[in-house]
Amino acid sequence: MELKNMLHGGDYNPEQWLDCPEILKEDIELMKKAHVNCVTLGVFSWAVLEPEEGVFHFGWLKEIIDNLYENGISTILATPTGAMPHWMTAKYPEIMQVGADGRRNLPGKRHNFCYTSAKMREKTRIIDKKLAEELGNHPAVVLWHISNELGGNFGDGSCHCDECNAAFRRWLKDKYGSLKELNKAWWTTFWSHIYTDWEQIHSPVPNGENLLHGLNLDWRRFVTYQMTDFCQWEIGSVREYSELPATTNFMFFFKSLDYYELHKCMDVVSWDSYPFWHKSKDEVPVAVKTAAVHSMMRSMKKKPFLLMESTPSCINWRVSNPVKRPQMHMLSSMQAVAHGSDSVQYFQWRKGRGSFEKFHGAVLDHRNKDNTRTFRDVTEVGKRLKEIGQKVLVTCNKPKAAIVFDWENWWAVEDATGPRLDIDYVKTFLTHFRAFWEAGMDVDVINMDYDLADYELIAAPLNYLYKEGYAKRVEEFVRNGGSYVTTYWSGIVNETDLCFTGEHPLKEVLGIRQEEIDAPGEEFANCIVYHNNSYSMGGLCEIVHAEGAKVLSVYEKEYYKGYPAVTRNDFGQGTAYYLAAETSQDFLNLFYRERGKERGIVNPLSEMLPYGVTVSVRKGEQDLVFLQNFNDDKVTVEIGNQWKDADTGEGVEGKIELVPFECRILMKA
Amino acid sequence: MELKNMLHGGDYNPEQWLDCPEILKEDIELMKKAHVNCVTLGVFSWAVLEPEEGVFHFGWLKEIIDNLYENGISTILATPTGAMPHWMTAKYPEIMQVGADGRRNLPGKRHNFCYTSAKMREKTRIIDKKLAEELGNHPAVVLWHISNELGGNFGDGSCHCDECNAAFRRWLKDKYGSLKELNKAWWTTFWSHIYTDWEQIHSPVPNGENLLHGLNLDWRRFVTYQMTDFCQWEIGSVREYSELPATTNFMFFFKSLDYYELHKCMDVVSWDSYPFWHKSKDEVPVAVKTAAVHSMMRSMKKKPFLLMESTPSCINWRVSNPVKRPQMHMLSSMQAVAHGSDSVQYFQWRKGRGSFEKFHGAVLDHRNKDNTRTFRDVTEVGKRLKEIGQKVLVTCNKPKAAIVFDWENWWAVEDATGPRLDIDYVKTFLTHFRAFWEAGMDVDVINMDYDLADYELIAAPLNYLYKEGYAKRVEEFVRNGGSYVTTYWSGIVNETDLCFTGEHPLKEVLGIRQEEIDAPGEEFANCIVYHNNSYSMGGLCEIVHAEGAKVLSVYEKEYYKGYPAVTRNDFGQGTAYYLAAETSQDFLNLFYRERGKERGIVNPLSEMLPYGVTVSVRKGEQDLVFLQNFNDDKVTVEIGNQWKDADTGEGVEGKIELVPFECRILMKA
Amino acid sequence: MELKNMLHGGDYNPEQWLDCPEILKEDIELMKKAHVNCVTLGVFSWAVLEPEEGVFHFGWLKEIIDNLYENGISTILATPTGAMPHWMTAKYPEIMQVGADGRRNLPGKRHNFCYTSAKMREKTRIIDKKLAEELGNHPAVVLWHISNELGGNFGDGSCHCDECNAAFRRWLKDKYGSLKELNKAWWTTFWSHIYTDWEQIHSPVPNGENLLHGLNLDWRRFVTYQMTDFCQWEIGSVREYSELPATTNFMFFFKSLDYYELHKCMDVVSWDSYPFWHKSKDEVPVAVKTAAVHSMMRSMKKKPFLLMESTPSCINWRVSNPVKRPQMHMLSSMQAVAHGSDSVQYFQWRKGRGSFEKFHGAVLDHRNKDNTRTFRDVTEVGKRLKEIGQKVLVTCNKPKAAIVFDWENWWAVEDATGPRLDIDYVKTFLTHFRAFWEAGMDVDVINMDYDLADYELIAAPLNYLYKEGYAKRVEEFVRNGGSYVTTYWSGIVNETDLCFTGEHPLKEVLGIRQEEIDAPGEEFANCIVYHNNSYSMGGLCEIVHAEGAKVLSVYEKEYYKGYPAVTRNDFGQGTAYYLAAETSQDFLNLFYRERGKERGIVNPLSEMLPYGVTVSVRKGEQDLVFLQNFNDDKVTVEIGNQWKDADTGEGVEGKIELVPFECRILMKA
Repeated sequence: MELKNMLHGGDYNPEQWLDCPEILKEDIELMKKAHVNCVTLGVFSWAVLEPEEGVFHFGWLKEIIDNLYENGISTILATPTGAMPHWMTAKYPEIMQVGADGRRNLPGKRHNFCYTSAKMREKTRIIDKKLAEELGNHPAVVLWHISNELGGNFGDGSCHCDECNAAFRRWLKDKYGSLKELNKAWWTTFWSHIYTDWEQIHSPVPNGENLLHGLNLDWRRFVTYQMTDFCQWEIGSVREYSELPATTNFMFFFKSLDYYELHKCMDVVSWDSYPFWHKSKDEVPVAVKTAAVHSMMRSMKKKPFLLMESTPSCINWRVSNPVKRPQMHMLSSMQAVAHGSDSVQYFQWRKGRGSFEKFHGAVLDHRNKDNTRTFRDVTEVGKRLKEIGQKVLVTCNKPKAAIVFDWENWWAVEDATGPRLDIDYVKTFLTHFRAFWEAGMDVDVINMDYDLADYELIAAPLNYLYKEGYAKRVEEFVRNGGSYVTTYWSGIVNETDLCFTGEHPLKEVLGIRQEEIDAPGEEFANCIVYHNNSYSMGGLCEIVHAEGAKVLSVYEKEYYKGYPAVTRNDFGQGTAYYLAAETSQDFLNLFYRERGKERGIVNPLSEMLPYGVTVSVRKGEQDLVFLQNFNDDKVTVEIGNQWKDADTGEGVEGKIELVPFECRILMKA
Repeated sequence: MELKNMLHGGDYNPEQWLDCPEILKEDIELMKKAHVNCVTLGVFSWAVLEPEEGVFHFGWLKEIIDNLYENGISTILATPTGAMPHWMTAKYPEIMQVGADGRRNLPGKRHNFCYTSAKMREKTRIIDKKLAEELGNHPAVVLWHISNELGGNFGDGSCHCDECNAAFRRWLKDKYGSLKELNKAWWTTFWSHIYTDWEQIHSPVPNGENLLHGLNLDWRRFVTYQMTDFCQWEIGSVREYSELPATTNFMFFFKSLDYYELHKCMDVVSWDSYPFWHKSKDEVPVAVKTAAVHSMMRSMKKKPFLLMESTPSCINWRVSNPVKRPQMHMLSSMQAVAHGSDSVQYFQWRKGRGSFEKFHGAVLDHRNKDNTRTFRDVTEVGKRLKEIGQKVLVTCNKPKAAIVFDWENWWAVEDATGPRLDIDYVKTFLTHFRAFWEAGMDVDVINMDYDLADYELIAAPLNYLYKEGYAKRVEEFVRNGGSYVTTYWSGIVNETDLCFTGEHPLKEVLGIRQEEIDAPGEEFANCIVYHNNSYSMGGLCEIVHAEGAKVLSVYEKEYYKGYPAVTRNDFGQGTAYYLAAETSQDFLNLFYRERGKERGIVNPLSEMLPYGVTVSVRKGEQDLVFLQNFNDDKVTVEIGNQWKDADTGEGVEGKIELVPFECRILMKA
Repeated sequence: MELKNMLHGGDYNPEQWLDCPEILKEDIELMKKAHVNCVTLGVFSWAVLEPEEGVFHFGWLKEIIDNLYENGISTILATPTGAMPHWMTAKYPEIMQVGADGRRNLPGKRHNFCYTSAKMREKTRIIDKKLAEELGNHPAVVLWHISNELGGNFGDGSCHCDECNAAFRRWLKDKYGSLKELNKAWWTTFWSHIYTDWEQIHSPVPNGENLLHGLNLDWRRFVTYQMTDFCQWEIGSVREYSELPATTNFMFFFKSLDYYELHKCMDVVSWDSYPFWHKSKDEVPVAVKTAAVHSMMRSMKKKPFLLMESTPSCINWRVSNPVKRPQMHMLSSMQAVAHGSDSVQYFQWRKGRGSFEKFHGAVLDHRNKDNTRTFRDVTEVGKRLKEIGQKVLVTCNKPKAAIVFDWENWWAVEDATGPRLDIDYVKTFLTHFRAFWEAGMDVDVINMDYDLADYELIAAPLNYLYKEGYAKRVEEFVRNGGSYVTTYWSGIVNETDLCFTGEHPLKEVLGIRQEEIDAPGEEFANCIVYHNNSYSMGGLCEIVHAEGAKVLSVYEKEYYKGYPAVTRNDFGQGTAYYLAAETSQDFLNLFYRERGKERGIVNPLSEMLPYGVTVSVRKGEQDLVFLQNFNDDKVTVEIGNQWKDADTGEGVEGKIELVPFECRILMKA
């Protein structure tokens, strides 16, 4: 989609205030004051749009869209399937999900629908088509917002009803062709689990089968497949009347749905970002996690994404919900932009008076109007986006490095029983991502399906599962000159969680042989020496033999003292590194800085950034360099010469001082 | 009810020993030795009273009541609905509760009945009437004990069966008249939750709706309403033959039932007190909690209450169950009396040989007779009650201060999502109560419905929900000269959990404007300075603006440094104080001592009591001053002149020494 | 069963590799290299043996057994009921268990069958008979392995279906004859729980009755009874064609099944041992626990047992799974032998490629062949067993001391509500067992049914429940000269959990009277002085009066300071000791060393062993003394003269040095 301005605004739920026209009027006045130029409408409006089956009320919505449009505010229009009206759940209980305990949900909450249900699809098509017919060509409407935070129904988002189980079996038949192939792929001879009839297959449930990893993995794939299919169903419905692009809003590391699949049916990627700022005085872990998801969203389509929801002050569903400190709202908004967002949108414009989210931060609260710090913070962000927008919209980050993060690997490595049960793939991924972040090196986040040739340096931590053909593509990548880093517990299983037998699939590339993997307790923590410094390690320690590789560092303790811990292997034109154990952050910071340097991947400002400071670059004719300070303290950064401030146009050089939580945007002078 | 003596005795379950006449004989001998003058009979006797449907055996019970009466021991007679006989649950499964998971309970345990069930009511009426007819006019019987610890069935006491859901809908129709009003009150437009048919409404359950706070709140009100209705049904049943007063035994901060409602159908309030003495060496937290409930029980009817159950030695259901240390039994018994109890009753007289409570402390154990410390402790309490009883019975505590503790607020503030999820209303209430306790100032515990004009000083901590008309009554109270203290997170929502929009309902009275509320993590803890001392604070910190109020103290840290933390506003003839943040115990102790002094509320003995020592006063022609030492150490208290010991009649003055765990009762000389 | 060699081998699952003949061939070559002489076949083979109902494939299995036999490897043949084929669960859902929540399981996992189900028994009989007919007289087959780890279905192994409930009622009728007797035994008058019809009785479930301890206890007995009956059913089935001995593999302190009952239908006891080696640097707690179970297995039949499963490297289902350190595999294998095992078997020979146990340690892994440390460790064990085997097979441990560990007591004491809810019977038992282990004194582990006259010293810690006649047999034992040690919270209830009234059942023997039992919190921890040293105590402290007994030590603190904590009573020719409180390990070590010395029970090597070192003796014409070092450090032990090394035949005397994790086997020179 092509934007004329950076979007600023957010979810707007005027249906809650239809009996308060003075509120609706005040909303528009204050939106303009806050430089809001785009709102999302209709997310939970089904019960108002279709108050009885087959009875439709669109007039109120049209009127609101008109009013907004007249005041320069465009609309992102949501299909209303995020929550179902009571008349529908009462009449068609089969549209509600069935949990893993076999019990069908009762009406209530959100996202409570079965994505397989024929009846749900029928009712969805009707309302979506109506909506598109009535408003899908309104000049104010710029984007379809399909449903809402799909799968986020306080469970894992999957449905275990009979319709879903039947669809799962059909999906398996398509995939495997015969039970013989399926039994082989799932290794069902173990524990006498051989299926002799397709009807014997059931979704994984606690009081039935849930230890057959191949089944578990295929079930998760099916859930993503089916949800994507539902999404396409909705898009197909609105497309009957409207050619507008479509998105759906993603969530923070949402394990249940493989977003690398789901995004494919979307025109633009968007997500809802709710970092836990001020959890502790050290904001870096939170900044890193948030940067990682921003980067992933951008990497999906290698294009700018939309920040679809965020809070201007606090959220309400954590145990303790601190308010954003001064400047944090600006910084966190700019962080999104720095990593590729072309918008800063909020949930929500005005706090509702009742129910679950009434205390979620919004631009307007219950008690005040524009006389609050939050309103002023929002206004400042709106102003800056407006002023800097044209420079930003023509750029995008284009890193030469990437980290592999793959949902199928995530599912498999955490479902595996052993060598540890507490393997945390996201956490491990984040330690590698953080090394890039601390060095101010932009990095893409891709899954195993992406073209590796786009990069010079690729890291694939904890890459337990290898998709069909992946090893071959990595081999090609390294042979052609790429730098590849991988770790312990990689290349263990194929796509159906069957262990590879014999050599490591990348044996030649890595130059090592794996013998054992130890999961030592805390008292058995190990360490390595690298460039004369000692670095602690633990969690998982693989015992490998260098068979071709050069040993860069060895274990210092335990019976595997002296065994390789870090190796390097030259292969073809490129190089492959192997980290045999879980290594500490400080080691990874050093290690990836070296790998970056080898490839000329550095941040353009400064070799060593102060703690808590990072740099992202949106590239274009004129690169924009976002210098972000996540410390609640002043810091000084050496940036060299020939820079100017993109906001003010003033020259900057030498030492630049950042105030607490400041984001400066620099351009070449 | 009018008592001739302080009651001393407890639950007696002779039906367990009907085949051991020597035990029954021994019981009476030992009761007399222990100065027992009143027992509770029949609590779990249904299966013995009606061994088959329609077959009644009352002879054994009458004989026991007769024997006791001949020996000077009166009877509190229980209706047997605390547990249901197996023949009944087998024949009428619909009388058993249905859990929030939709599953009907199987027979077993206690309190397992549906209070709506027509069949349960039918069977209850039959047995209650029979009981009343047979024994309700026996000269030994002094009180009806309706059922037992209502709602205490190891769950939350509520039933989700179809009969209950139907009754709930009727109750809602009565309350709201129309779905339009209900939808408005519950703000159902949010998340498309608009009800279009009464039948769509279901009790809150985990796999259905439970995030609609208005629904949750009304469901809790309904549960109390329905349980009260059941209770009245039982009272009505026994009243067909007997005019005796009735009670039911309440429990320790039992969230499921609003006792301020339930007590209304009772003639006298009673409760079962099981404090966790000797949990740690510092007994004060436990003493405070217990004192708070005693005070609440007294405040309900502003009359003496009955301590219906307590243990003479240990209980059996905590992880570790210490035995009462020497003197603790006397002290804890006297503590009840000090706060308004006219009885000390035990569960139970004799340990049963089997099942769940066989190791619960009782006057008699399995292995010994009167040759135990416990028996001697009980005997001493009995003796003292007998000797001091006539002086006590004519008195009652009559404080000029009150703290608001309201079940509806409790439900609402802990159900709200934000600003913290771990808000603990009871804990917060207890920090305020403790400030009074440490100063030895008696205080009533009332809900929002009570007449405020009875008091000079009222504290309303964490008063999130305002009942209809409450703000107006507070305004009146302050205008007429009262002192009112309230805190952060007060006056937020109305009775259906809808946020008030615009100003605080007590804006004029408090003189402040609320802007934000911060829920800082531990690293962001704040503090205030008050009278030159620093006091820590945290948890919740409101950012308010003084608009009329005088600022007594400000925050010392964070971005709201310098903002008001403690304010005072003169309004009409009175004064209103506002505590903008969760404050520490030491601050509250100082703060309320000041507020007390302003109003002439002090304890009659000593300005500063030693730690762990408190004072309660039962007022009458001759005030009785209970001086209680909760330290396992000697302490010395300065009491001034003109006192005498109420037990011995001897004069006491100047310094008085209390031995460990001692309670002295003083009168003006 | 008579063995010609120590068994070495383990579970072998070739049905997973039938399409890889080269693997099957390699297996035999490598088995021979690793000195494997016995494998277990068929554990989870039902789906391959009977791929469709009534269609049987035995050829593949016979061929494998033949091949193994030709290569000198014998077979333990398993009945395949450990897991059920899908065709069977699909056709006969009634064979699957019903959980305590009343829901029938779906197919999947293991051990998921109802042991009462008539259909399950029918299908079991068919396959077991077929198996016995086909292979039960094959010369290679040496033992029947009935099912697998009975009850180990990730729950507590019990089934709550209607068939089971009906069988439970029949079992109760047999036991009690009348409801009157049952009501009395279960004390059902309490809480009005009187049963008036057998049909009212239901297994204990969370949403029904589960606080009636008599019911709970009888239900557990019934589960063991019914599982034993199922086991006998299987044995009866194979015995129609085969006279081979039978076993089933037991597990680590498996609470759900009383192994002292279940073993009775077996010819030889076997178990699966998975200690958590390298959990911490101090391996002693793990070594002690493992030694205790080894000892229990041996004590059941007072004969050698079989170690049926163990891992040669790591397991996979703990949170972290360390690899066995060098020498640990030899030491842990020899530990089993030292306590009476005549085998060292593994789960499993070769890691499968898929599903739950693919990362469980095996002799062969996915990536390597014999070029691993694990393979070499296994080979060394095989070699040593072969060389030392003939000397070992003619011996068995024959201790003069025993500790009582009784499943019925376990169930009862942990189900009781009070005086603590966290009573851990196994943990308490292990502190007593450890005192023997640290002194290097072999000890049997028996339940209350064994003949006490076989021993000179018997310890019965936390012996809450007394079986019928037990007190009398203890009295006899002491009167005839035995030493008996028991503790607080002993002799409290009879077999149906009814408290004994009046005196302690062993009053005369112990010479004490119990008054109270305190469960003090941590701040109230107590201590005793014994032989001038102070020893801490806590958890449970009984207040007793010495009435005949001599007081050896008293409490030093709390209101029971000066009351007896340790007593000794001479009775008849013997002596009874009473420990009134939970005592620390160091005290027990001293105390039992004294008791041993009094009876001439010492280890033959050294009075004081270094920490982490123990001694076990297999007695025979030539005693074998196993000296085991569980330290990852060298230690020196003074052993005196006249010893020789059983492995090498070389003389050893004076100081002997053990390397880390070494086990030396000594014989008299």
